[in-house]
Amino acid sequence: MKMIFNKIYIDDLIKRALYEDINYIDLATDYLTSDDSVSTAEYIAKADGVLCGIDIAMRVFQLLDDDIETEIFIHDGEKLKKGDIIGRVHGKTKTILEGERTSLNILQHCSGISTATAEYAAQCEGTNASIAETRKTLPGLRALEKYAVTIGGGKNHRFNLSDAAMIKDNHADAYGGITNAVNVLRSKMGHMNKIEVEVRNKEELNEALAVGVDVIMLDNMSPAEMAECVRITAGRARLEASGGITLETIREVAQTGVDIISIGALTHSVKAFDISLKIKK
Amino acid sequence: MKMIFNKIYIDDLIKRALYEDINYIDLATDYLTSDDSVSTAEYIAKADGVLCGIDIAMRVFQLLDDDIETEIFIHDGEKLKKGDIIGRVHGKTKTILEGERTSLNILQHCSGISTATAEYAAQCEGTNASIAETRKTLPGLRALEKYAVTIGGGKNHRFNLSDAAMIKDNHADAYGGITNAVNVLRSKMGHMNKIEVEVRNKEELNEALAVGVDVIMLDNMSPAEMAECVRITAGRARLEASGGITLETIREVAQTGVDIISIGALTHSVKAFDISLKIKK
Amino acid sequence: MKMIFNKIYIDDLIKRALYEDINYIDLATDYLTSDDSVSTAEYIAKADGVLCGIDIAMRVFQLLDDDIETEIFIHDGEKLKKGDIIGRVHGKTKTILEGERTSLNILQHCSGISTATAEYAAQCEGTNASIAETRKTLPGLRALEKYAVTIGGGKNHRFNLSDAAMIKDNHADAYGGITNAVNVLRSKMGHMNKIEVEVRNKEELNEALAVGVDVIMLDNMSPAEMAECVRITAGRARLEASGGITLETIREVAQTGVDIISIGALTHSVKAFDISLKIKK
Amino acid sequence: MKMIFNKIYIDDLIKRALYEDINYIDLATDYLTSDDSVSTAEYIAKADGVLCGIDIAMRVFQLLDDDIETEIFIHDGEKLKKGDIIGRVHGKTKTILEGERTSLNILQHCSGISTATAEYAAQCEGTNASIAETRKTLPGLRALEKYAVTIGGGKNHRFNLSDAAMIKDNHADAYGGITNAVNVLRSKMGHMNKIEVEVRNKEELNEALAVGVDVIMLDNMSPAEMAECVRITAGRARLEASGGITLETIREVAQTGVDIISIGALTHSVKAFDISLKIKK
Amino acid sequence: MKMIFNKIYIDDLIKRALYEDINYIDLATDYLTSDDSVSTAEYIAKADGVLCGIDIAMRVFQLLDDDIETEIFIHDGEKLKKGDIIGRVHGKTKTILEGERTSLNILQHCSGISTATAEYAAQCEGTNASIAETRKTLPGLRALEKYAVTIGGGKNHRFNLSDAAMIKDNHADAYGGITNAVNVLRSKMGHMNKIEVEVRNKEELNEALAVGVDVIMLDNMSPAEMAECVRITAGRARLEASGGITLETIREVAQTGVDIISIGALTHSVKAFDISLKIKK
Amino acid sequence: MKMIFNKIYIDDLIKRALYEDINYIDLATDYLTSDDSVSTAEYIAKADGVLCGIDIAMRVFQLLDDDIETEIFIHDGEKLKKGDIIGRVHGKTKTILEGERTSLNILQHCSGISTATAEYAAQCEGTNASIAETRKTLPGLRALEKYAVTIGGGKNHRFNLSDAAMIKDNHADAYGGITNAVNVLRSKMGHMNKIEVEVRNKEELNEALAVGVDVIMLDNMSPAEMAECVRITAGRARLEASGGITLETIREVAQTGVDIISIGALTHSVKAFDISLKIKK
Repeated sequence: MKMIFNKIYIDDLIKRALYEDINYIDLATDYLTSDDSVSTAEYIAKADGVLCGIDIAMRVFQLLDDDIETEIFIHDGEKLKKGDIIGRVHGKTKTILEGERTSLNILQHCSGISTATAEYAAQCEGTNASIAETRKTLPGLRALEKYAVTIGGGKNHRFNLSDAAMIKDNHADAYGGITNAVNVLRSKMGHMNKIEVEVRNKEELNEALAVGVDVIMLDNMSPAEMAECVRITAGRARLEASGGITLETIREVAQTGVDIISIGALTHSVKAFDISLKIKK
Repeated sequence: MKMIFNKIYIDDLIKRALYEDINYIDLATDYLTSDDSVSTAEYIAKADGVLCGIDIAMRVFQLLDDDIETEIFIHDGEKLKKGDIIGRVHGKTKTILEGERTSLNILQHCSGISTATAEYAAQCEGTNASIAETRKTLPGLRALEKYAVTIGGGKNHRFNLSDAAMIKDNHADAYGGITNAVNVLRSKMGHMNKIEVEVRNKEELNEALAVGVDVIMLDNMSPAEMAECVRITAGRARLEASGGITLETIREVAQTGVDIISIGALTHSVKAFDISLKIKK
Repeated sequence: MKMIFNKIYIDDLIKRALYEDINYIDLATDYLTSDDSVSTAEYIAKADGVLCGIDIAMRVFQLLDDDIETEIFIHDGEKLKKGDIIGRVHGKTKTILEGERTSLNILQHCSGISTATAEYAAQCEGTNASIAETRKTLPGLRALEKYAVTIGGGKNHRFNLSDAAMIKDNHADAYGGITNAVNVLRSKMGHMNKIEVEVRNKEELNEALAVGVDVIMLDNMSPAEMAECVRITAGRARLEASGGITLETIREVAQTGVDIISIGALTHSVKAFDISLKIKK
Repeated sequence: MKMIFNKIYIDDLIKRALYEDINYIDLATDYLTSDDSVSTAEYIAKADGVLCGIDIAMRVFQLLDDDIETEIFIHDGEKLKKGDIIGRVHGKTKTILEGERTSLNILQHCSGISTATAEYAAQCEGTNASIAETRKTLPGLRALEKYAVTIGGGKNHRFNLSDAAMIKDNHADAYGGITNAVNVLRSKMGHMNKIEVEVRNKEELNEALAVGVDVIMLDNMSPAEMAECVRITAGRARLEASGGITLETIREVAQTGVDIISIGALTHSVKAFDISLKIKK
Repeated sequence: MKMIFNKIYIDDLIKRALYEDINYIDLATDYLTSDDSVSTAEYIAKADGVLCGIDIAMRVFQLLDDDIETEIFIHDGEKLKKGDIIGRVHGKTKTILEGERTSLNILQHCSGISTATAEYAAQCEGTNASIAETRKTLPGLRALEKYAVTIGGGKNHRFNLSDAAMIKDNHADAYGGITNAVNVLRSKMGHMNKIEVEVRNKEELNEALAVGVDVIMLDNMSPAEMAECVRITAGRARLEASGGITLETIREVAQTGVDIISIGALTHSVKAFDISLKIKK
Repeated sequence: MKMIFNKIYIDDLIKRALYEDINYIDLATDYLTSDDSVSTAEYIAKADGVLCGIDIAMRVFQLLDDDIETEIFIHDGEKLKKGDIIGRVHGKTKTILEGERTSLNILQHCSGISTATAEYAAQCEGTNASIAETRKTLPGLRALEKYAVTIGGGKNHRFNLSDAAMIKDNHADAYGGITNAVNVLRSKMGHMNKIEVEVRNKEELNEALAVGVDVIMLDNMSPAEMAECVRITAGRARLEASGGITLETIREVAQTGVDIISIGALTHSVKAFDISLKIKK
């Protein structure tokens, strides 16, 4: 297998998925399929989009059976046309039938995310804006989902609460405002973590700029307000637009000059991308 | 906490989610929030739908902190109106801020599923058909997602490959057809597992009826074909309609007289239901 | 390794067993056996019976050492005569000595179950009855034990509380009887789960038949009562005899015409089947 | 809960058992039992024996539900008479029904072991011999089973391969005999680990005594041979009788003067002790 | 318990430690100490230093026994004088004896790190430099060790390979130098991750400054070279001194004007801080 | 890989370490290194000492990547001179960069322990005394650390609370002294576990000798007192010196004639041994 980010994580995730899908036995397959039966199956795209997760999807079979053989024709990040043959697995029919659902569930979820990300990113073409996901990911699937975002052309937001700090109003309020909160945080936090501050208006923006932070999140602002913030900021911090931005509204947001547009829906409201695994007769 | 299906599973799932969201520390919260600070926060619906997962969402805080207090005003399965206050948590501000994202991610995913299920189910009103999910669930989340389907008014399909057998064409082909496959399976399988057979046309339907199975899946048939199958079957088996059925087409399918309509999208293409957790000032 | 039901489960179970048997080090073996020493060892039957678990027993060594070589002469489900050579492992002496006890503990437990099952099944020859185990399995070993029952010629009962419903008197009482309980359950439960009802007399049997369930358990009845129930039922449901049935009494029960005879002792009171692993000099 | 050896181990074991028995949901109980229903249930002995595992059996319910109340009337190690009420659990009916099978499976296995151990131990009364189990335990259950042996009046053999060394013929052969093997082992092993040597005849016994070991296992000897070994040893090492000793033959073995009699059957061939959990109406 | 960074992580770590220290049973304690015996024990400092880990140390007992009572007199981050009573646990003697070693092992390791960190930090007083640990932590203990560094007055370096990027010569070489490597990385990486570049001389420093990175690591430079780098950099990036800096040499390094001094020894070569747990008679 | 004590433990430990070091992705490596890039890297000693952990260090890469190739030139237990090339890994550059830190962290910790142990052991040359570690090990690392002690020439103390009993004053006090405590313990404990008693003076020593125990720990005695204890004991028990013994004082202790000297610092205060992994250009 190609090295895919954290292999230990991937293997754990697959094993958990196989365990919940098989539990004790695959009744139909274990009782009806001969140990000697061998098959070849092909992953086929049922729509147009961007592929993501094919190495992981094939890893499912490898974890069930050391002897499975795999071939990949289209790689993660490449475009899919309906009808494309993405790859091929060859080995025991039992292995293929038992791993099929788990393999497809992962592949369709990942490709759904990468395809959606690519659609959002396409709307930003010609602007400065890049697309990011949020922490609105599904339990246990964060790394998988973040990977799919990058494959679709997005760039990751922070991974977790440890690797960068986001100061929200609840945090700031405890210190009488952004300035104190940032200063206290900076006095405790390491030099490798960035600080982002959420602002709701120009006053807060100016306060954040004055105290000097890495990223400023413009929370639920109109495009006009965002454009004004871009003008005020003048490159002194990176600006992230956030809050209910859709495929319909994103281009207008991107054109305001913000640097990052974060989209919760990329991971919290994924539409599976349709791919089938077809056993060749 | 109310008994929620498998508590051991729920606790494991929550711990995994908290671990991936916190990893080492919540930089902003741990460095900016006093250990003595206490808050109350309310879950508020941001749309209309059917609630699911509130006990689990609150369990997140209990696993972080034994002293958290929770109150539930609206229970799983009840209707939500935009603006409804669903429940309340009270305790250390730190606990609330650290668990917030994990709690909401679970609650929004569950409520997204239950709300969608309710929409599909509403289309079947007055017919014989009930709604079921499929095995197209996300890795590690199957029990959670199946629970949400029942809360939305659906009735669960089989949980995994061990608890009921679905004979597909690949299985049947190995035995020269449905009849032999069913007979072999029946000779090996226990008396508590049902057999479902996938059929693509009337010939296969008749074969399945002749050999006598519990459920027959009508695979990608038109409503007219389904209605014909219902007529032929005449109650001798339960009939499941499957394949690309949408909110637009489901009523027509339901009116054919099939017993079950299975919808992969309920779990593979979930739209998060918007709920916020608001700290009261 | 041959595909054995859930490989993920099997590997976990073996690793747990190895961990508890080795903990830190095998004092005698690690300190006395050279890394270069190579041996061949043979599994030898010490009694007559039915073999079960040989692939799993050999998997123990594979998990300790990728280079171990294995050969199987007698397969799961085949008859054993005292003295039979079942299979052979070849590789580092260290590996063989460290895995020996764990390998044999699993093999002897599985073969004990399959052998006992075969004895019960033999008593049912010529009748309609098949043998099933119960949920009286040992903590963590259910899938392993259920597999051994099938290898011995039994057919599995439900795996767990999720895959089929058994209505006992406690459940029925809450609804004023079997009829209501079955109806409520049917209104909530999915179409792929069977319902079994426990009955203690003819009145309850008739109630269960009237409401229409999949399986009826005849709880602690005499053979005469069972025969009467078979006559009344006349094929309208499958009948399971349960409660204190022994090798001495099973034939009489089987001859009553019941469909299934469930035997708790198959898994809760296993007698290990004696097999040794002999290093060839 | 009373402190029971390793609580971390016990909780893990129970959670694994509950997970495999419940998986997703208890169909009958979750769909038929009201959240408000409260019950009291009693553990009742169905035979005479020695109780073991009641604290662990009750811990099952505590792990499902913090609010369960428990009372113990008969404690581990005490004698049971058929009909004795051992203890009582009180709380949600759901909790009781969902944990019942897991609780009883553990209790019956433990009490089966303690009762059998007590029977073997009774045969040794008036002699010097004590009863020990072996490493022939079931995967994952070793600590549980060893505990049950002590409760029945036995004394534990070594726990695993790390805590004491047993030199078998395979080990000795690699060094040209017992003397060299013991000396090499002693030169590497720590001062807190005992050495036991397996001997098959008087020559090996004398060699073991000459090199000075802690324990000598008399492997498959006749009572007459054992008595002779006892005479030769004259207290210079502890003597363990091993190999096919049954309830019928143990007294004769005990009377030879050996110190320990190890019985594989105590853990590899357990007969469940019958205890029921009866909900009071 | 006080909220301590990631409670899920802490509980896992403690359970693993208890499991390896107890395994099956605490022979001396379980066999010699009465279930009714109750004791009070006090943590006493045996040297001068900075306390770290007292909440975690007490959590050990809580995980063994819900009824343990704890009191803390000196908190994490406070100075210890030899003889100080840090805190008190009260409850079953068994619990105290079984958890003692695990509790102290954690407390002494944490306090060793915090005490050493404080010593290094003291040497930087009056300068701009802060102290950071590295990724040279012990397997499984990283979060624990990083926490101890902050308690001792240090500020954390990046947690892992995901949360910030360090470009070393191997990375840069693949792209023909720092400039290209940084540009490629920036085009892929998210906006919340910082980039640090390792430089070995002024040329590389100037290249890093030109391309604009967040942090520059001065690898194994002399104080004179560092001072020169500080002058050149003039605040355009944060500078980290790294490589073999000891308590003897750190002040000279700090006085060069670097921002961060990273010390591998803080976590890879910890000297346990002596604290005892004394049962009061 | 060579068989290294408990492979299951080693693999778990490595996976946990890789997980915490990588989490989601290695930003620099995954974004900057080509999948096709291949490298060779060498482990090089940066000081003189005793190597320990090289097989485990290389196992890190194997768990990330099945195709990595490894060669070992210097083995565990062999002496290292500064500059020695210990071994070589060859394979994907990505694999090498991602596993490097984890591999080195383990190797440096193990070699630090083995080197220190060898220094203590060297001081005992010509005496009867051997070196042992204590239970003062780091959470989760006990087996690894104990292995390193043996590689450095030490001999292991007991592994955990289950495999041998140490009677301390708290235990003895509960029974009115050592004699009763030993007798009670002996009446319950198995024949394969040793008893050690901690004594503080000659009276306690004589009591311990009279009741007959395996090992006696001389707690914080002066060399003169120890010598006196050796004389009194006259070989009737093994004597362990314990308490604050350093490299400076150990020779004097060893010359008193004690059998074992236990040193907590071997594992609680490890100084990492410097080894680098250098990619060849």
